[in-house]
Amino acid sequence: MCLTLVKQLLEKNEKGQVIATCRNPNGSAGLLELKSKFAERLDLQQLDLTVETTIEESAKSIAERYGSLNVLINASGILSIPDVLQPVIILTFFNFSTETTLSKLQRSSLMLAYEVNAVGPVLVMKHMWPLLSIGGRSGTDRDVAVIANLSARVGSIGDNCLGGWHSYRSSKASLNQLTKTVSVEFARKKDPIVCLLLHPGTVDTDLSRPFQRNVPEGKLFTKEFSVQKLLSIISNAKRHDNGKFFAWDSQEIPW
Amino acid sequence: MCLTLVKQLLEKNEKGQVIATCRNPNGSAGLLELKSKFAERLDLQQLDLTVETTIEESAKSIAERYGSLNVLINASGILSIPDVLQPVIILTFFNFSTETTLSKLQRSSLMLAYEVNAVGPVLVMKHMWPLLSIGGRSGTDRDVAVIANLSARVGSIGDNCLGGWHSYRSSKASLNQLTKTVSVEFARKKDPIVCLLLHPGTVDTDLSRPFQRNVPEGKLFTKEFSVQKLLSIISNAKRHDNGKFFAWDSQEIPW
Repeated sequence: MCLTLVKQLLEKNEKGQVIATCRNPNGSAGLLELKSKFAERLDLQQLDLTVETTIEESAKSIAERYGSLNVLINASGILSIPDVLQPVIILTFFNFSTETTLSKLQRSSLMLAYEVNAVGPVLVMKHMWPLLSIGGRSGTDRDVAVIANLSARVGSIGDNCLGGWHSYRSSKASLNQLTKTVSVEFARKKDPIVCLLLHPGTVDTDLSRPFQRNVPEGKLFTKEFSVQKLLSIISNAKRHDNGKFFAWDSQEIPW
Repeated sequence: MCLTLVKQLLEKNEKGQVIATCRNPNGSAGLLELKSKFAERLDLQQLDLTVETTIEESAKSIAERYGSLNVLINASGILSIPDVLQPVIILTFFNFSTETTLSKLQRSSLMLAYEVNAVGPVLVMKHMWPLLSIGGRSGTDRDVAVIANLSARVGSIGDNCLGGWHSYRSSKASLNQLTKTVSVEFARKKDPIVCLLLHPGTVDTDLSRPFQRNVPEGKLFTKEFSVQKLLSIISNAKRHDNGKFFAWDSQEIPW
């Protein structure tokens, strides 16, 4: 999913720099392959969502090299611009999927989910904010910069009819509230940045395979399809979209 | 607020045991005063929300002494049945109130807020669940046991028009999602427990004093008034209220 985001950002545009961050850039064969093809346009940076100094260093390096940002994508609840932190995705996902009942809920799963899915993304927003303010004022067709935080429909409290997945659900509800809170500040300060929360749909990946049997026919998407839809929402974002929660098909999701 | 809850629970009922928990029961003059007046009916227990073994021990002790619970109140974001953890309330409150902008947001404030306001209450629910199941099936006029988690209107994502207080807001949104998730499981299992989320209104306390100037006339409540309203909602809770978020005046609050 994250790799597909990077790939499409590079392939669908003829110019523009893409900065992909992860804990260990040299450990991702997919990223290294893209790097060999798009050497000039793809910048790989080391960043650990749970270590704020690495976020600050990334922001500093982007400031020095590029001076601004037009789009920030916090993907998969792990950090990104876009992100490729597969090992942590797997770890957290497997923890969450065993949470079928309150009696199995673990404090450590909850804290990890908040750290990675809510705190990490908002700290990235904090440190990239000045770069996005500059980016929003200059050099885009949209006249705004965009922050897209990958949330999930299961993070919706109003839409929660099945229960389970306590850590994942509540960390995404937190991310939704944090993003909404930040969007209010940007609007009040007339900062040219639009914050979006996006639900990618159920995507056919190794991670979702154990849960695919409950997905209605025609609602299990390829990574390519889902990423195309999300990038289209990001490209077409307008100021009045600030602070909203959209599914892959641009339908708003209740909180 | 918490002490007023304990006081009214004891004074408004002629019988029934009240178990009040806090980190240091001997450190609260107010609780000790109530204990001297209601020696038989008030049970003070040591419990630290951030140490799960103390929650387990409290549940075990309640099981041995009383065998069941009819009401569980997680008050003020800190643990309780009801709770009186004033030192932590003050600590967290002061952190949150300085969060007027994204640029000041601290990772440690966020993590502390999640730990105390979301993780603590759900772990209490986890360990008290068997006692509430028994309590709901026997010995109440309501034919259900009630879990009342003190949330706050500022935890509502849909109602968030002012921004700021990131940690407090997002931890309460988490608590809302966790409570909703648990309520779905109770309903599915036909467990006779109703989960409520309650907003006490703005109450005139030392803690709220710095923020009172924005409160509309007639909307700043005494602790006694607010607690009376919340206890009335708890007493009148029905099965169809399960998983809902109510203000002091019984109006539903959007997620």
